Formats: sequence, C-alpha cells, structure tokens
Amino acid sequence: MIDLRSDTLTRPTAEMRRAMANAFVGDGVIDVDPTVEALEQETARLLGKQAALYMPSGTMSNQVAVRVHCERGSGFLCEAECHIYQYEQGAFAALSGLIAQTVVGDQGSLRPEHLQSLIGPDSDHVFRTRLLCLENTHNRWGGRVIPQSELDAACAWAHEHGLQTHLDGARLWNASVATGLPLNRMAENFDSVSVCFSKGLGAPVGSALVGSHAFIDEARRARKLFGGGMRQAGIVAGGALHAIHCHRERLHLDHEAAQQLAAAATHDSPLSIRGGSVDTNIVVLDVDPNWGRAGDLRDRLYDSGVSCFAIDDTAIRLVTHLDISREQVERACRILQTVTSSAGSRV
Amino acid sequence: MIDLRSDTLTRPTAEMRRAMANAFVGDGVIDVDPTVEALEQETARLLGKQAALYMPSGTMSNQVAVRVHCERGSGFLCEAECHIYQYEQGAFAALSGLIAQTVVGDQGSLRPEHLQSLIGPDSDHVFRTRLLCLENTHNRWGGRVIPQSELDAACAWAHEHGLQTHLDGARLWNASVATGLPLNRMAENFDSVSVCFSKGLGAPVGSALVGSHAFIDEARRARKLFGGGMRQAGIVAGGALHAIHCHRERLHLDHEAAQQLAAAATHDSPLSIRGGSVDTNIVVLDVDPNWGRAGDLRDRLYDSGVSCFAIDDTAIRLVTHLDISREQVERACRILQTVTSSAGSRV
Amino acid sequence: MIDLRSDTLTRPTAEMRRAMANAFVGDGVIDVDPTVEALEQETARLLGKQAALYMPSGTMSNQVAVRVHCERGSGFLCEAECHIYQYEQGAFAALSGLIAQTVVGDQGSLRPEHLQSLIGPDSDHVFRTRLLCLENTHNRWGGRVIPQSELDAACAWAHEHGLQTHLDGARLWNASVATGLPLNRMAENFDSVSVCFSKGLGAPVGSALVGSHAFIDEARRARKLFGGGMRQAGIVAGGALHAIHCHRERLHLDHEAAQQLAAAATHDSPLSIRGGSVDTNIVVLDVDPNWGRAGDLRDRLYDSGVSCFAIDDTAIRLVTHLDISREQVERACRILQTVTSSAGSRV
Amino acid sequence: MIDLRSDTLTRPTAEMRRAMANAFVGDGVIDVDPTVEALEQETARLLGKQAALYMPSGTMSNQVAVRVHCERGSGFLCEAECHIYQYEQGAFAALSGLIAQTVVGDQGSLRPEHLQSLIGPDSDHVFRTRLLCLENTHNRWGGRVIPQSELDAACAWAHEHGLQTHLDGARLWNASVATGLPLNRMAENFDSVSVCFSKGLGAPVGSALVGSHAFIDEARRARKLFGGGMRQAGIVAGGALHAIHCHRERLHLDHEAAQQLAAAATHDSPLSIRGGSVDTNIVVLDVDPNWGRAGDLRDRLYDSGVSCFAIDDTAIRLVTHLDISREQVERACRILQTVTSSAGSRV
Repeated sequence: MIDLRSDTLTRPTAEMRRAMANAFVGDGVIDVDPTVEALEQETARLLGKQAALYMPSGTMSNQVAVRVHCERGSGFLCEAECHIYQYEQGAFAALSGLIAQTVVGDQGSLRPEHLQSLIGPDSDHVFRTRLLCLENTHNRWGGRVIPQSELDAACAWAHEHGLQTHLDGARLWNASVATGLPLNRMAENFDSVSVCFSKGLGAPVGSALVGSHAFIDEARRARKLFGGGMRQAGIVAGGALHAIHCHRERLHLDHEAAQQLAAAATHDSPLSIRGGSVDTNIVVLDVDPNWGRAGDLRDRLYDSGVSCFAIDDTAIRLVTHLDISREQVERACRILQTVTSSAGSRV
Repeated sequence: MIDLRSDTLTRPTAEMRRAMANAFVGDGVIDVDPTVEALEQETARLLGKQAALYMPSGTMSNQVAVRVHCERGSGFLCEAECHIYQYEQGAFAALSGLIAQTVVGDQGSLRPEHLQSLIGPDSDHVFRTRLLCLENTHNRWGGRVIPQSELDAACAWAHEHGLQTHLDGARLWNASVATGLPLNRMAENFDSVSVCFSKGLGAPVGSALVGSHAFIDEARRARKLFGGGMRQAGIVAGGALHAIHCHRERLHLDHEAAQQLAAAATHDSPLSIRGGSVDTNIVVLDVDPNWGRAGDLRDRLYDSGVSCFAIDDTAIRLVTHLDISREQVERACRILQTVTSSAGSRV
Repeated sequence: MIDLRSDTLTRPTAEMRRAMANAFVGDGVIDVDPTVEALEQETARLLGKQAALYMPSGTMSNQVAVRVHCERGSGFLCEAECHIYQYEQGAFAALSGLIAQTVVGDQGSLRPEHLQSLIGPDSDHVFRTRLLCLENTHNRWGGRVIPQSELDAACAWAHEHGLQTHLDGARLWNASVATGLPLNRMAENFDSVSVCFSKGLGAPVGSALVGSHAFIDEARRARKLFGGGMRQAGIVAGGALHAIHCHRERLHLDHEAAQQLAAAATHDSPLSIRGGSVDTNIVVLDVDPNWGRAGDLRDRLYDSGVSCFAIDDTAIRLVTHLDISREQVERACRILQTVTSSAGSRV
Repeated sequence: MIDLRSDTLTRPTAEMRRAMANAFVGDGVIDVDPTVEALEQETARLLGKQAALYMPSGTMSNQVAVRVHCERGSGFLCEAECHIYQYEQGAFAALSGLIAQTVVGDQGSLRPEHLQSLIGPDSDHVFRTRLLCLENTHNRWGGRVIPQSELDAACAWAHEHGLQTHLDGARLWNASVATGLPLNRMAENFDSVSVCFSKGLGAPVGSALVGSHAFIDEARRARKLFGGGMRQAGIVAGGALHAIHCHRERLHLDHEAAQQLAAAATHDSPLSIRGGSVDTNIVVLDVDPNWGRAGDLRDRLYDSGVSCFAIDDTAIRLVTHLDISREQVERACRILQTVTSSAGSRV
C-alpha cells in the first residue's frame, strides 16, 4: 500500500532510532533534559526567537500560545479554515474561555482588508481582541504557501492595532523550502510560532513553540497546566533534533513528488488541482462530479494500492513524505491515471 | 431633546409605577414571588411554552440558554451580526467555554444553504455542534423581521441535524405586531426563546426565558450560578406584567412613527434606508458619503434637538418608543429634513 | 405564621413602596440611572470606599469580586463554612476557573495561625493564591460578629503576603450595629466589600460591591459579562436607598428580639445556643439528641405557628427581621417553650 | 553525587533503550501505534480494567480523569495533601471549572467518618459532588501505603452516595509490592486509576489512565483536547512496556534501601521518621529543630555528596530508585550519620 494519507504517518529511520537510543536525558521537570534543551535552542535559533519549548503535540503548542497571548475572556482573529479553529476540538474556548473570531479570507490568507472593523469598540458589551493567528503552509488550503508580503502586511496591521501575532507553522519547514526564504525571515513578524517535528520532518513525537523569553516562561507554566510536562523526553526530542538536522534538506523531494502526482492525476482526467497549484507536499484534487464522488475515487484508489483521504464530497487529498519512495510515487501516478481513465461511478 | 437612541430608554408610566408599587411580593429564592410567578406564567402562555423564568437582563437570558443547551466544550451556530455574539462580551466562551460558530447569512437570516457543512464530523479533533441561535427582530440588521418561512426552515434543518434551537426574541413583540403572527406561532419551532420587557414594552427591568419544564429547571439553576436570583423581584416584575398586558397593543404606533421618520428623512435627501425597508421600530439610515460622515450628522441632529446613535461611519440609527409622542415624531421629521437639506460636512 | 426562616423574607414597607414608585430612573446601561447612582454613592460613602456598584444579588457581588481580584487560574483563601464557597454553586470555579482554598478556622474567623503555609511556593506545579475572603457577620456561624482585631490581623497578614482582601458583608449592617463600630472602620482593611440590601435592611432586590475606582470599573465590566446590567434599576435601587436611610437604625430591635428568643428557647429546655452566644439577628439552637431531631422540632414548631429551618440534624435556625413584630416575638417565645417542654420524639 | 531527590530522575537502562529503539510504531492519531496499544492492553490487564490510555504525564491522566468523571461545574472530594490538588496547578478549576473539596483525613487516608456531610443538599445554591479521589501510595505522606480496608470502605461509601471513584496510583506499583496485593485487587473498587511509568519503574515518559471502555473513550477525546495526542509514541511507550515487564520485580530493592537509609539516619541522631514508618521508597525525616533547619541539613548533605529535597522547614525527603546502587545506599547511610552526628546549625 502506498500510504499518501498524511505526512504524520512517517516512521523514524534507522539513523533517527539510533539518535534516540543514544540521547542524553535528564528529568526535564525537576532539572533539565539536555537533549530537549539542545532541541529547544536549535529551534529557537532557526526561527530567530529568544526561546523555544518542546511540546507533546502541535495542538498543545497552538493552544498554549493562544492562551498565553489572550487575557481571560478575550478573542483572537483567525482564518476560518485554520487548524486552530477546525481541528483542535475548540480547546481555546473549552479550556481557556477564549473567542475565535473566524475570518473568511482569500485561500488561507488574511489581508488587512479582511480584518478591518473586526476589532470592537472599547465597551463593556464587547469582548476584547488580543491576537491574530495565521497558518503557513495552510493545511485545509492544500499546503498553500501564504505570500510572505501578505503575512507581513497582516502582522503589521495587527501590531498597529495592538494585537499579538501567532503563526501556526506546523509545516513552516515546507514553506521555507518552497520559497527559499529562511525560517527566521518567515517568523520575523510573529510574536510566537509553533512548528511540528512529526509531520514532514519525520520525527515520532513533538512540536515546539518559540517566542520571547517572557512568553516562553508563561508557556512553560501553561504546558504544566495542560499536562504536557514530560520527564526524560530527550528520547523523543532526540528524534526531532535529528530531524531538523538531517531531514529538512530532503523536503524538496516531497514537493517534487507532489508535483509529479498532480501532473499525472490531472492529465486528461476528471481531476483538477484545487486552488490551481501545488505549493508544497499536499495535493488536493477536485473530482468532476460527472465522474463521481470523492469517496468513490478514494475507495477505488485503495483497491488499487493507494491510500488517501477524501476531505469532502468532491476532493481527495494526497500527501507526500519521507516514507514514500520515488518508485512508489511513479507507481501511484500510474494508478491515478488508470483509475481515473476508467468510467466513474456516475458516468 | 427627542431621544431616539434606543427603546431601552423608556421610563415607567404612572400606571406602571402604580402596578409596581402595589405588587404582591415574596422571597423568590426561598419561596415564590407571586408577581414573578404570574409574569412567568403569562409569558409562557403567550409564547406557547411550558415554563418561563424571569431574568435581570436579556444577556443573562441568552447566555443561560446557550449554556443549558450546549454541553461543555461544544459549539453553537449563530448569525455573524447577532446580539449573542456581538454584544454580550463573549460570555458563552468566557463563562461557559463554548464556541460561537458565526455564519454570514442574508440580512440576519440563516437559511439551510448557509448552514450546510458547518457541523463537523464525529472526530476527537472536532468540537460538537449542539445549537442554532437566531434573532428576530434583528437588532444589527435594523429591526428587520426575519421571514417566518426562513425561521421555520432553519429550525427544521437544525432539528434534522440533532441541534436544539434558541431564538433571541428581545423584540419578538415587535415582530409579532409587524407580521400579525401570534407570538406562539413565531416561537413554535424554537426549543427556547428569550424576550425582553425593558425595550419596546417599556418595563424598567428584566427579560424572560421560555422553554420546556426540564429546560427551565436547568436554566433556574444556571440563573443562580450567574447571580441572577432575586428576592422580592415582584416589584420590577409587576412593571413587566403591566407592560405585556397594556403596552403590546401600542407597538404599532412605534412602527408607524418609524415609517414616518424614514419617509421624512429620505425625501430628497442624502439619506437612504439601509436594507431598503423599515420593518419595525428601528430606522437605520445610510448617509451619502458625499454629504458627510454619520458622526457629523448625529452631532448636527443633536444640536437641533434629536439624539441618535451613529452605528458606524456611514449610518445613523433612530429608534421609536413609548416615550416619543406623535408631536415629537413630527418635530423630529422636520429636524431631519432641515439638517440634511443644509450643506453637509463634505459638500 | 411567624416566619423566622430568614431575613430575606422581608417585604417592602408602605414607605419603601412609595419611595420606589417615585424614584427617578434612567437607562443604567446606556446612560446613568440617577437613583442607582445615588445609592452607589451613598453606599461607597458609608463604607469609606471610592466607588460602589449595584448588583442584582449578593452572589453576583461576591463572585464578581473574586473574579476581578484573582487572575485566571489562581486561588483564594476562604473560611470553610463561608457563603462564597457553600452557597453560590461554585461559580468561582464553574464560571471563573478559580480555586477555593478552604480553611478551617475558629467559629468563622481566620487568624494568621490558620493561614500560615497555605500560600504555595513559586512553582509551575502550584497555583497562585491572590485573595483572602472573610465574612462578617458569619451566616453559617449563626450571625456571629468576627472580632475586629482578628479581621484586622488577617487582612494585615494577607497584605503582607501580597494578597487582596474581600469581605462578604451581606449583613455588615448588623455587625456595625452590634459592635458600635462604623461601617467604614469595619471595611477599612478590605480591598472590596459586598453588602446586601435585601436581608435585614428589607429592600426587595439587590446588593452592592464597593472598592477603588479601578476595581469597580473592572467589576462593572464583569457585571455585564454575568448578565447583571439592568436598565431602569432605580425602581428597586430606590427601595435600597430608602432602606439604608431608614432601616439601619432599627436593626438593634432584631438583635434584641433574637436575644429574647434565645433566652426563652433555652430556659429549662433541651435547646442550647450553638457557639454559646447570639451576636446579631440569627439564633442557632442545638437540639439535645435525647429529646429528638432538629427536623422534628421544626415540624412541631410549624404546627404551632412558627416557621424556621433545620440547618442540620441537630440544630434549628431562627432569624429575626423587620416583618416580625414585638408581639410575634413574644408569641414565638411561648411557642418555643411549650413545644420543647413537651416530650420530644425520642423521649 | 548520590541523587535521592526523586524517583522521577531515573534514566533508561541499556535494555530499555534497546526496546525503544526497536519498537514498532504507527501514527497513533490517525491509526494505532502498535506499541502504545500493547502497553495499554497490558496495563489494563494488570489493573483489571477494560481499557487504558497512554498519556504524556501523570498530571494529564489525573486531570482528564477528574474532567471526565465530573459534569461541568461540579465538585470532587479529595484528601487535602493529594497531588491532584497540590501539584497540578489547579487544572481541575483552571481548565475544567471544577471544585476541589479538600478533606483533612488521617495520614493520607479518608475514611467514611471524614466524608460524612460533605455532599451538599439538592439545591440550586449548592454545587453537586460527583467524585472521590484517593492516592496510593501517598506522595506528601511519605510514600505511605493506604490500608486497603480503608480504601475499600471509602469507595463503598462513595458508591453508596452516587459518586465515582478515582485513584491516583502514580506509585501503585510500589504499593502492590509493599502489600503483596495484586494490582487488580488494589484497583478493584475504583472506577478509574492513573499509574505512572516514569517514577519507580524508570521509563522516560508517560502515564496511563485505566477504566471502562466508555470512560476511556471520553478520556481519549479529552486527551486530544488537552493536546496529549501523540503520533509515533510507541518509541517512549516501548520504554514503559519494558518497564512494566522488567522493573516491577525489583521495586522491593528500593523499599529495602529506604529502610536501610531510615535506620541509619535515625540511629542516635536528631532525625526521626515522619509518620513513624517507611512503607515504600520514600523516606521523610523530621529534623530536630534544636539541631537546625531542614534546609541546612540538605545543604550539608549536598556538600557531602547526597542530594535530597527539604520539603518544609523541618523535614527532608529521600527517595530510592533504580539508579541508586546498593553501594550508593551504603555510602549515603554513612554520610547521613556523619553529617547528623556533627553539630547542627543551632547547636
């Protein structure tokens, strides 16, 4: 089975397993775990921030960030399709009592024109807005890289209006490879950034939140509150440290594989690329309704040896990653062509 | 000064003051306050529900309703401009940890087409949606009466999808007068309804929440939690009881006055009715930007003896009510004409 | 029926009803209600604080105070039997996410010796403590007046340790009459105080929270959040204003009546005064278990024309107030003696 | 340095590292991680429950358990010194809005006599109590094993009163070894139990929560909410699985070492065992104030090569574990005797 459901499926390589087996560790709650510390320092350095904090999941990174930035009972602006709002069970409200002010933007991007008038007046009737959250690359928008100029403009607008800014950069590694911009340039205008080690980078567990010393101190306290304090986490952090040293450079291969899949899938076929282009390692393909439903296509691909998700009634999603070989990509291309060239369920 | 800022400004009439001064009262926390009980029974009867609960404010009615309908950590669908989301300081999240799923509809109405796909899949990543909230008449949409067929369709959609339904009917009295539909018909498809006594009805204090016996039992418990349990509230409830007996029939006068103001204001002038029509007692007037800004118009009207709100940069709002006499309406018409016929700030 | 269950049962007098019927009112949400404003100013003056805020209930006063004093996720020290912890449905946690650190003290009083070691170290494992709450007179401790020197010492300890202090003074009026100390002296060392108008003072509705200007500004915002913003509340505030002008001086009559009841009840009888003395208008009487259970005594008294509460298996509570005449007190004394001199349920 | 501060300090053995390096893993969020699944099944089997859930920390296990057992706004009974109340930053309130009803018991044990009267009446004034939490072995009570008969009686009382029961069994492994009772017998009367792998068992990361299928399903949802969903957690779960297979049998060595340390430390010295006996691997030693303060003793021990905590002004704590060899225990005994036989700071 060629499993293209998600880049979270990657399993540690032999070298990564060796790195984890040999990691120096300590009690990260009472003392410091040296491998966690090394990972945090390296991540902070790459992102150009003062400090970083290792977390068991990207959800915790994001939700701790939102909680620390927003005072009790306040709101944050976020794009309507973002992970923080869509896929984290509403923890911002359920645990932290915050209001998500979802904004319909333009393919995952929020420009000042989308944000005008969303900060309420200073009145006891109205909650206060404290934060703007953006996402890059954007998961629900098919791994799209948000143009840096638009991120910069949105952050400038936010800061002018007294808001903090947080970037959900779970796949910022991919965005950096796709744009050629260094990570610290992409993170520059954000007060905090979360990044994931267990997606395209292929580490088994973890995420990091980066920001100023003062912010990370509060985030560390919130991590304990959420139950995210781990003891000898250097074992898994060792995998993440290996990943940021050894797996960033190969991400362009995943992007090339995604291009290859997209080209094959849309050549003379009922499929088209949602949003018009593939920016990174995610390919979202709209299925011509005259051919059939996305769920049917997913099932037929599965029967032919390719596993993917139908993300709604009319689209499937393919994600390339570390565990997909060049040969598998080529085979998946052929399977896509064969399956879509045969008659669909509604033809 | 002719004060057209809000129908919440009304002061009790002499008869209402007499009713309050003579109200039978009791300790509504330990026992029952007989006047509160009479008000609750009459309100429940008018709305066609099993039970009602007197509340110190419409905000508490709405926020208690949302809390009781929605299990911990779940979400509710609501129109993006509704009072529950815009003007109640985000209590649904700040106090109750709930998520408002704001939906951009059509002039305050949500039709099934706006709601499709907003209920997430059954997944640990996704919060559950439990409730649909609508508002009628709609405050931010200029006192608009939502067509009953659209309310019915939205409720049917909600119930089909396992959601409860709540109506913010702060001014449902006005909607009933405007449409000629009885209150219980308008409330029929909602599991709960809140109504206000201190707006067009002219009572000094209070609101009621209506619903099933089981719902109101839980709402009573939540009212105590919010600090809304009052002792001899029959004093103020007596004003509300007087209001629903004596002031509902005169609401059509406020609507007629609103029509009169709208006609005068827009006759050969830089003003136009936002949304195209005036349904009830609220008149929102867009100011031609070539004439000037809404704030300027408000200030000039104030200097001429009419007080109103500028609700944004380009619109003023006038609200007719019990304390505005026929003569004052006529005077306000003349003032509107005079002020708008003179050169504006940008002319 | 001589109803001695609670001083919250009092109904407005004819004069109070007149005061309410004639109160000047305004929209307290948009503008200012002049009677509410007068009540707030007079209450602040009496308590010696900068500002006051009218509230629909004592529960809201206390819970808003606790919320405003305590940052998100922090704790407050309070006596284990206090109203804030026992009778307000846990709103401090349920709505505000705060931790009540209950302390077993000495008959309602917390002295520094009870408080030592309750403030945790500065550690991510430990929540922060921000507030000390005391209660005077103490409801569950039978209307006991806490010695002023002990209140002063506890406040001094709290301030030394960086805590704020809040007094639940629902019946501080009674404490002031009992001790002869002026209200502002009793409130002096507290950062905020709540007082009730609908208990011994006999007003139908309401409470006030007093403190600094900055504190009351935040409390006003929280009052809106809780749904406590009322429009023309001057109607009921007029009753409270009348009460603090006209009913404070008569509170000593309630205290004398309580003494009379206590003396009669314990004379050659199976009853004894819990805590040894009656300080104000509450009499808690322990029932000799050899005679019978408190519930039986309550039922027999009820059959003879006296209504009271059994507060646990072994004690009944009698509360004197405005609506109990001198003649009723004497009659109640005779009934108590008759009922207790007859054989009890276990004799 | 002989580090006796905590059994959380243990580092993975070479065998454990090998087990982790070779663990089969999968995406535990999308699919199932086979090693995590094996650990969960084995833990559930050992504890005699239907299902288990791997967690990043004991704090998350406990706080998820409390949240799932207690409906919104309700309370749980717990011993005043328990970890859930003392060391988890008040997450039960801060994140879940619940009330901790702390009970002063008898050396960590709550018997029915301590619990009587703590469940309030069915009233809107009073929060509901839903859960009883106990801890075994008890951390703040020096690793004490709570007598099984007392645990059984408390659980029986709780169930009779409609409460659920949760056991914080972070060191239940030690309790089982100390008493000879099987784990499933000790867990029998609890609806849920949390156990830690990163204390005496020596695994680097993690804890498990066990209970019924229905309970664990809800706990899994809450784990996602808290941000505890991890991807290829089999790496660290592999260490935990190794630990429950290989390190439980050696726990008696830690208990013997604790006895040895206690005997040496209290022989002809200013130290005495707090609580009178050492049950498991924790030794709490009271320092005679005439000799000096606990902090001074800790510092002198440190200078001599033994690291421990001063847990308050008059006591130090020593914890034995996997990484302390027999030789180190003997050396620590000699150091304790030497340091305490010399003159103390106040002598």
